Amino acid sequence: MTPEKAVLSTGGTQGYLRIATEEAYAPPEMFALYREQLAAGTNENIGFNVFENYLLNNTDAWPQSIVERIQDLGERRLADMDAAGIDHQVLSLTSPGTQVLGIDDARRIATIANDRIAEACRLHPTRFSGLAAVGFDDAESAVAELHRAITELGLKGLIVNSHINGEYLDNPKYFPILEAVQDLDVPLYLHPNLPNNRMIGPLTEAGLDGAIFGFGVETGMHLLRIITSGLLDRLPRLKIVVGHLGEALPFWLSRIDFMHAGQVRTKRYDSIKPLELAPSEYFKRNIWLTTSGMAWEPAITFARSVVGADRVMYAMDYPYQYQLDEVRTQDNLPYSAEDKKDFFESIAKDVFRLDLE
Amino acid sequence: MTPEKAVLSTGGTQGYLRIATEEAYAPPEMFALYREQLAAGTNENIGFNVFENYLLNNTDAWPQSIVERIQDLGERRLADMDAAGIDHQVLSLTSPGTQVLGIDDARRIATIANDRIAEACRLHPTRFSGLAAVGFDDAESAVAELHRAITELGLKGLIVNSHINGEYLDNPKYFPILEAVQDLDVPLYLHPNLPNNRMIGPLTEAGLDGAIFGFGVETGMHLLRIITSGLLDRLPRLKIVVGHLGEALPFWLSRIDFMHAGQVRTKRYDSIKPLELAPSEYFKRNIWLTTSGMAWEPAITFARSVVGADRVMYAMDYPYQYQLDEVRTQDNLPYSAEDKKDFFESIAKDVFRLDLE
Repeated sequence: MTPEKAVLSTGGTQGYLRIATEEAYAPPEMFALYREQLAAGTNENIGFNVFENYLLNNTDAWPQSIVERIQDLGERRLADMDAAGIDHQVLSLTSPGTQVLGIDDARRIATIANDRIAEACRLHPTRFSGLAAVGFDDAESAVAELHRAITELGLKGLIVNSHINGEYLDNPKYFPILEAVQDLDVPLYLHPNLPNNRMIGPLTEAGLDGAIFGFGVETGMHLLRIITSGLLDRLPRLKIVVGHLGEALPFWLSRIDFMHAGQVRTKRYDSIKPLELAPSEYFKRNIWLTTSGMAWEPAITFARSVVGADRVMYAMDYPYQYQLDEVRTQDNLPYSAEDKKDFFESIAKDVFRLDLE
Repeated sequence: MTPEKAVLSTGGTQGYLRIATEEAYAPPEMFALYREQLAAGTNENIGFNVFENYLLNNTDAWPQSIVERIQDLGERRLADMDAAGIDHQVLSLTSPGTQVLGIDDARRIATIANDRIAEACRLHPTRFSGLAAVGFDDAESAVAELHRAITELGLKGLIVNSHINGEYLDNPKYFPILEAVQDLDVPLYLHPNLPNNRMIGPLTEAGLDGAIFGFGVETGMHLLRIITSGLLDRLPRLKIVVGHLGEALPFWLSRIDFMHAGQVRTKRYDSIKPLELAPSEYFKRNIWLTTSGMAWEPAITFARSVVGADRVMYAMDYPYQYQLDEVRTQDNLPYSAEDKKDFFESIAKDVFRLDLE
């Protein structure tokens, strides 16, 4: 296949391009590895077993359709995008990606994903951009792969699917990776995962470990740990994009500021130290939100009101949330034409430094 | 001390009584028992040890002031209420209350708390109402104590401080207690606790297990479990009051409905079954919210917009959140005079069936 011309096949007639910023891809090699691990019972991540058993060992129509769509980077995906009116997808390795694997498998899958996504971007430069994956548990090789993905392959940021075998990015061992993200001036996308083994029990037993609730617990906690650990004081130019309108942290901003100040004052926990800013202020300096899975006007309007309209952008979460009516809902948001263009197009172009004309 | 006359000592000049609905009391006997357990290292609840060690074994001014204030049901508390302009408190046994104790201690402490709170209400009928505590792990005696507290002592509802030694109210063993709550036509107040042992690890290590974040995780999950378990189909007249503007569930309502429908359709979890209503609809039939710890106009306005202005009422969370400026903030909410009276006074009178003139 030869690269298409740099002309958008849909889009623009509504006054903006629809750029979807949290769109999932899975290499067949990764699913093959997951299936091997499920069969052998060798993966100790409870959430991995719960979710991938459902997704991959299933004859129902819905999971089968996800598994088919998510591995495609060509005609099937483009047709879905055309049908939904999505001009451009920012692709990333689906959750949990490399983060439930040993380091050798993690590095291998990250390289495959980066090469595959970069090839799709080369063939369809107007339709796709992509984020890099890495094997987080070896910082040196992760930094090297991130450099290759950004500077050689032209990818636009780094995906992290929340916990890494139960660890969080405030662990100092990941600092060199985040420092490289800042130095390369690309964003980190903090995507959900099922909660780690030390939290998932009471959620799984009630059927609440996934997108209905557990994703938000896991990912909201991860983002708050990044903030309260002081990581954004050490890396003040780090850009973080987070889905689901900020995983409910916008709802809690005032309470988080109040309680954080109290915990600092009383020295109640060794892990809570003074920060240069109030926790909520990092949402106006380092953090952008997307609407993945949250095509709901009250929550979008609320989030914009507390973090700023210039920090909330569109995402679909294809193929998991391939809902055509949700595109229409967001086309009809009661904001000005200029704000709508920012929401669907301009913020994403700016944060991910997309090369779209 | 003789009972005061039924004349409000403050209140009313602003056009409404300020009724605070999540106000904590601790009997000295409970703290003595907690101190014994801390010294002996016999309580296995991680959150109990983290929090009570901080609160009770501390020479800093803030925890000492909490410990002093929370045990008082007389002049000290009334003076604080007068200073803050609080006309009336709905008292309840502070978290974790009985719910980290063995059944004998739990029953003993519940009885003490109920008698003590009832006595304060008798002495100061215009200033105090109260909720009942029970020892949840023996349903038969809990139902008996609840009946005594409501019908003999005149208490107005039941307090539950989230998990009961790691268990949740969707466990069938608690059903008779909830059935009695419905039959007595009083509300259940679902109050936070530190997360249970099977969730608390990654929160505690980061200093996030308490009011800053962990309370919301624990209590939001508890409320969602109550809904998704079908308990509110079996008890359609059960009234639940929840603090902190619904523990972030209002933020997630649309996503919860969408994902719940998908989980029902795909039969993905045994524990997720069809419900008579969408999860969000129970917020308009069975659930009321209070503003404890959330004196923040954007979140209050958002919550009112999605669950209804007739379902959001005032709470302070005395003495933990004894913040005079927060009363003023809520006096200044940009709602009509009628709505403000509902918010501070009428909803609480109605839901708790208070006898105030």
